[in-house]
Amino acid sequence: MSEREETPVWVPTSVSERARQFLAVPRAPSSWPAPDDVEGWEKHIAAVDSAILSRFASAAQLPVTVEDRDISGVRTYVARPEGVPAESGPIFLDIHGGALIMCGGPVCRATTALTAMTSGMITWGVDYRMAPRHPYPAGLDDCVAVYRELLEIRDPADIFVGGVSAGGNLAAALIVRAKDEGLPMPAALVLGTPELDLTESGDTFHTNLAYDTVLGSLMAVNRLYAAGHDLAHPYLSPLFADVTGFPPTYLQSGTRDLFLSNTVRMHRRLRAAGIDAELHVGEAMPHSGFTGDTPEDLDLAAERRRFLDRHRR
Amino acid sequence: MSEREETPVWVPTSVSERARQFLAVPRAPSSWPAPDDVEGWEKHIAAVDSAILSRFASAAQLPVTVEDRDISGVRTYVARPEGVPAESGPIFLDIHGGALIMCGGPVCRATTALTAMTSGMITWGVDYRMAPRHPYPAGLDDCVAVYRELLEIRDPADIFVGGVSAGGNLAAALIVRAKDEGLPMPAALVLGTPELDLTESGDTFHTNLAYDTVLGSLMAVNRLYAAGHDLAHPYLSPLFADVTGFPPTYLQSGTRDLFLSNTVRMHRRLRAAGIDAELHVGEAMPHSGFTGDTPEDLDLAAERRRFLDRHRR
Repeated sequence: MSEREETPVWVPTSVSERARQFLAVPRAPSSWPAPDDVEGWEKHIAAVDSAILSRFASAAQLPVTVEDRDISGVRTYVARPEGVPAESGPIFLDIHGGALIMCGGPVCRATTALTAMTSGMITWGVDYRMAPRHPYPAGLDDCVAVYRELLEIRDPADIFVGGVSAGGNLAAALIVRAKDEGLPMPAALVLGTPELDLTESGDTFHTNLAYDTVLGSLMAVNRLYAAGHDLAHPYLSPLFADVTGFPPTYLQSGTRDLFLSNTVRMHRRLRAAGIDAELHVGEAMPHSGFTGDTPEDLDLAAERRRFLDRHRR
Repeated sequence: MSEREETPVWVPTSVSERARQFLAVPRAPSSWPAPDDVEGWEKHIAAVDSAILSRFASAAQLPVTVEDRDISGVRTYVARPEGVPAESGPIFLDIHGGALIMCGGPVCRATTALTAMTSGMITWGVDYRMAPRHPYPAGLDDCVAVYRELLEIRDPADIFVGGVSAGGNLAAALIVRAKDEGLPMPAALVLGTPELDLTESGDTFHTNLAYDTVLGSLMAVNRLYAAGHDLAHPYLSPLFADVTGFPPTYLQSGTRDLFLSNTVRMHRRLRAAGIDAELHVGEAMPHSGFTGDTPEDLDLAAERRRFLDRHRR
């Protein structure tokens, strides 16, 4: 029996009609190329990116200007919402998702523009290097390099860092690296359904496997990214880092999210370390939410925006 | 096949050894008497209460004095931790759990003493009337009556209201009733894995059914409690109430909790109404936590205490 046929389609009455339609579609079966099949990976990545990019066609219509820049050798998209001054005010450092191997280039450019709109801030989208050609630590090095450049032009109190899924991995790992390298902390951190544990040890990797219609295990990809490094190292799995001194953190997940355990475990760790951390969980939401524009998605987007606004000075 | 045999026992590595031992024990199969078998219900309730009471034998050893009082005709246990003054300071109105039919009398007396210890406040434990002899609205009427008496002797800013499971139902319903009756709001509300939806419409009633080792559906009991009233009425299922003007609220659940949906849905509703509400979710925790004294249980107890302390004046 294929994975698609095994996935039960149970749709609750407790969410909007559009969310229910989304949940009625079972997860597509995933298959990955062999570890050393670089061309196979690149083909797979290109196909997924192309499908995702088609969903962001409207991003070009947003009232946002996007500039392609080279920041310390790292391609970075600088998106500025109309009416927001360029020379001052907060900057959001946005680290894109995509399982640490996808959603760079034009997808990253589009999602950076979207983040600028939803955050209301100038947004720097880091088009970090990725596996298979550039495994760990290339991507994290790129994020740290861009963060260092940001510190040259803004007070830390004007810098926000965030990411969704794999972007949440790199955003949290960036904070751990910044701490280790003696860099100041940003004003706040946003972790959306974050991939904080590449060992996939959390309980919901098991309990939500049949219910998350978006995501299954990423272990094959995690190994490709780690390229022999220890998956449990705090730079690869920041869930296991010492989180003392982390900035105020917003964490978001869903009851069906494969990464729900990642999210609540990090929330508990942050709270145990005395960090101002808030948790928001969407009813019946799989990994990264529903369509992005259901009432439930928009409710959480508004919550995230309130968090950012509250931490602006 | 019995329910016991069907329940999968999957134990994650992401929690303490004692939590894992707790999760390794499958849920006992539950069977309920026929709706009109009053004696059958009373026998069942007495057996469960007796088993639960044996776990609280040490409550009598706590440095807490407990006084049995009659408050507006409602038996209420007034528990005062040693060293806490009797005449002033905050009072916690504690509404016991037990599926709206159990855990009254000596169990309520013991849990009231425990709440006094963990809250550090004088605690009033309401031994409200219950089904089968006293279905809705008797229990809620009792809680409202005791709240009214509390308002006679304390400023609302010195009153806290809370409950776990069925106690979370009555605590939230009490707030809704108090609003409707023009009574002032307490300083804060605590909802532990709350039974806020007697229609059981949330997604985790389905998705966590095989994983919550403590709780299965309570629909038979809900009907007994409702005695023909609409299960979806906001006084019976406060999840569906207008929550405008609710006090600051602490909500707690677990990723395996059958009531996780209840908890996160209420959190979203409160936040959408602009209420200061915080959500805490324990990794792999079933309904009402593990043994009560695992590191994970104690972490969340400490979080709850911090919330209470922050809202004391």
